[in-house]
Amino acid sequence: MAGDDQVREGEITLPFDPGAATDGPRCVFIGHVQSPWKSRAECPRNISQARGRMEREGLTAALHIREPYRPGLRELAQFRHVIVLYWMHEAARHIIVQRPRHMPGARGVFSLRSPVRPNPIALSTVRVLEIDEAAGVIGIDAIDCLDGTPLIDVRPWNPEIDMPPGWRSGEE
Amino acid sequence: MAGDDQVREGEITLPFDPGAATDGPRCVFIGHVQSPWKSRAECPRNISQARGRMEREGLTAALHIREPYRPGLRELAQFRHVIVLYWMHEAARHIIVQRPRHMPGARGVFSLRSPVRPNPIALSTVRVLEIDEAAGVIGIDAIDCLDGTPLIDVRPWNPEIDMPPGWRSGEE
Repeated sequence: MAGDDQVREGEITLPFDPGAATDGPRCVFIGHVQSPWKSRAECPRNISQARGRMEREGLTAALHIREPYRPGLRELAQFRHVIVLYWMHEAARHIIVQRPRHMPGARGVFSLRSPVRPNPIALSTVRVLEIDEAAGVIGIDAIDCLDGTPLIDVRPWNPEIDMPPGWRSGEE
Repeated sequence: MAGDDQVREGEITLPFDPGAATDGPRCVFIGHVQSPWKSRAECPRNISQARGRMEREGLTAALHIREPYRPGLRELAQFRHVIVLYWMHEAARHIIVQRPRHMPGARGVFSLRSPVRPNPIALSTVRVLEIDEAAGVIGIDAIDCLDGTPLIDVRPWNPEIDMPPGWRSGEE
């Protein structure tokens, strides 16, 4: 199975590879991510770490939208923060219990933010710096993935929707 | 094109239907959402509205995970909030500029949280109430989608990753 060389001792794999599925809907790539990270070894662990490194080193990132999808950027400039969804195209999809190097013990994939998952969709909340609708470019403050990673969606971050209930006030 | 009857005056469509794409990776469905909403007319506008209605009316919701994916739930119980990703299987995918009924004017799809988008993936941050790993059931406080909506991912909500930079402290 593709990615079997990436399985560590104590990990559990699915009896099939989701990457070889012949049913299920297809994702379309609306563009790609431009990032400073040119190899997996260089990639930060998450967006928070990426933000720190990019700020310290003066690095930039952007989202590039393919031509037919560019009218979809209309009115986006009014938002300060967006959620970016991208497809981690180099990640294995069949490891259902994982042993991340930076954690003790094995954990189920749904309790991890690992890019290795049945549907390898990553999501990050980023700050919008500038938008060029005609060129299809959104400048953003930071991103944690490989340069060239396929983009599948962009949407406004909305505290009413995206903050857990009662989190802000601690009332729950 | 599928969904052309759903296009309103002033909206702009893509010259192709992403739902008919023959390339791009496939999503697998890891389970389904159990919700109180049995028709699109009944569905709340978003998770915030769903939460209010479900609390007032004493309604319940759950995520049902298919058998092979259930080991992925291991260690999830330590998290209070998860982000749920689900596939809005009844939504058109080709309307790139939209005129939502509850807003003035037309807006690009990437400035909207509409389920109608090139990749109709919805995401909500919910509270975990209980987990039955063997049965593959996660009880949650609320959800805004149709009963039976296909599930594509569950992951812990993490304030270090999912809060916009500087949002909490207002320092940006």
